[in-house]
Amino acid sequence: MIKNDLFLKALRGEQVERPPVWMMRQAGRYLPEFMALRDKYDFFTRCQKPELASEITVQPLRRFPLDAAILFSDILVVPQAMGINFEMRESIGPWLETPIRTMEQVQAVSVPDVNESLGYVFEAIEMTLEKLDNDVPLIGFAGSPWTILCYCVEGRGSKAFDIAKSFCFQHPEAAHLLLEKITQTTISYLKRKVEKGVSAVQIFDSWGGMLSPTDYQEFSWKYINRIVEALSEVTQVIVFGKGCWFALEEMALSKASALGVDWTLSPEHARKLVGPNMTLQGNFDPARLHSSPAVIRKMVHEMIDRFGTQRYIANLGHGILPNIPVENAEAFIRAVVDYKKN
Amino acid sequence: MIKNDLFLKALRGEQVERPPVWMMRQAGRYLPEFMALRDKYDFFTRCQKPELASEITVQPLRRFPLDAAILFSDILVVPQAMGINFEMRESIGPWLETPIRTMEQVQAVSVPDVNESLGYVFEAIEMTLEKLDNDVPLIGFAGSPWTILCYCVEGRGSKAFDIAKSFCFQHPEAAHLLLEKITQTTISYLKRKVEKGVSAVQIFDSWGGMLSPTDYQEFSWKYINRIVEALSEVTQVIVFGKGCWFALEEMALSKASALGVDWTLSPEHARKLVGPNMTLQGNFDPARLHSSPAVIRKMVHEMIDRFGTQRYIANLGHGILPNIPVENAEAFIRAVVDYKKN
Repeated sequence: MIKNDLFLKALRGEQVERPPVWMMRQAGRYLPEFMALRDKYDFFTRCQKPELASEITVQPLRRFPLDAAILFSDILVVPQAMGINFEMRESIGPWLETPIRTMEQVQAVSVPDVNESLGYVFEAIEMTLEKLDNDVPLIGFAGSPWTILCYCVEGRGSKAFDIAKSFCFQHPEAAHLLLEKITQTTISYLKRKVEKGVSAVQIFDSWGGMLSPTDYQEFSWKYINRIVEALSEVTQVIVFGKGCWFALEEMALSKASALGVDWTLSPEHARKLVGPNMTLQGNFDPARLHSSPAVIRKMVHEMIDRFGTQRYIANLGHGILPNIPVENAEAFIRAVVDYKKN
Repeated sequence: MIKNDLFLKALRGEQVERPPVWMMRQAGRYLPEFMALRDKYDFFTRCQKPELASEITVQPLRRFPLDAAILFSDILVVPQAMGINFEMRESIGPWLETPIRTMEQVQAVSVPDVNESLGYVFEAIEMTLEKLDNDVPLIGFAGSPWTILCYCVEGRGSKAFDIAKSFCFQHPEAAHLLLEKITQTTISYLKRKVEKGVSAVQIFDSWGGMLSPTDYQEFSWKYINRIVEALSEVTQVIVFGKGCWFALEEMALSKASALGVDWTLSPEHARKLVGPNMTLQGNFDPARLHSSPAVIRKMVHEMIDRFGTQRYIANLGHGILPNIPVENAEAFIRAVVDYKKN
């Protein structure tokens, strides 16, 4: 049904002529057409208006031969649906007026009916699928419960999320109750996305790398794995844990179809950790897109040489930076599409 | 000569009855007596007045049975000595009015005579050694050239130092010239510290973990290793690279006496990477000092059980957080001192 199914084949571990390619945050601030919409509509309006979210989702597909689209949205729409009122503040980013730091506050958090509170996301999926016309698969996503807890407790972005970690260490029961509520909401949310037609889902654990391996199991992986278990019954699941190289061996035993890795891990080391039967995704350093297009091309080809063409999805090791020249992003994508094994 | 030489024995790989213990940033903001001085004198004044720097250095030793002192100072005194005018701004941290982003600016940076420009540090060492009265060894330190470049180019702290990285990728010649100048200054600076009487030096590569393994070799390790080579002729060298687990195998081949590790690495994995003959230092998660003293004690004992008592220096995996209760810091230190192998 989907014309270009390279991405889905790689997720299933099927033979492909070259690795598929997409970029984390491919629908975003490095594109002038995105910036034009950004000047008109604020961040969460762009997420909440299906016509805007779907338009932004397909913008990079009009320019580049990408092998997948990823729905434009934000991980914080989930806590918003749970009654946690995140705003997006200029030059600060995510902002929560009253961060969650007590058991009483956690108890007041609701597990919503996602059809009511996140209906706009499902409408955006419908409109996006129309625009994509089955050209490429559409990826849905959610933040990991731990990463969402980080924002809920810290109240904003942070270098090390020490307040969030300290909350978990001082009030483990409250932390686990909040993680449980986020997990339940996320499972309903992603399942509904699949019903609406996304072909795969990715879970972003952006801040898992702040935890020790032992604490990671307790506060992050346990909950991610429940989402993976629930979703793997209905779709392909990708788990991307930034800085979570130490958990890759454990992750490889799960029902995830692919694991994302950041650029601090060599391709050989990543493969060694996950074994031969897991699809890997990554891991070009986003800042390396500031190199010249010729250097980017060479480095991308080296990356594929090292990861291999099979069970591999070419991607960045984290989201694309806002100030990357469009031609450099294009050089990255075309280097994958043009790759020929010598 | 030094009464408690446990720390030096561990660095030399000699048999010890228990591991030595010190804490990164042990002279700092979790201590009320430090805060009292902080209210009176600004940050760089505290570094520049030998009577203040030496007083702050010995403050934690008056409270706790630590096995080493580390000279109170800052990694940015080195670029300051090179004519790069860092300030410390309230609620921002390090601040450089005009960040270094061109070859012309790099060419204007000087390699100073450290005796002239950093004489206050050497005076602080003299005063500290008098106060320590040979009770415990004194550690001197410097930032890695890469980490200092990060601040010079970014102009302030950052989550990912993308501007600094992009500068290196776009202007590698300028980056290498700056790294070279910092390296030369750092070698003179640390050698002079050793002449003045520090018993060991630690190199802090706080932002090495932002680089890919390949870029790390080119922009960070190459220069750290030159410092290690030069200093290992005259003293014991510890290298601590936050997030640099991927480089530990390479680091273990150097002339460093010990390697610091952060808390994302398990003790067993760290040992596997560095082999049996390297002393390891770390790696208690600083945020875990928010647990209760009883939990801290239990976790510290588990940490030592896993690292083993030999070729091991108990420490945090990064600097102590400002809001840690003094009794929790003390619980950490006493748990090491009281450790008995069952």
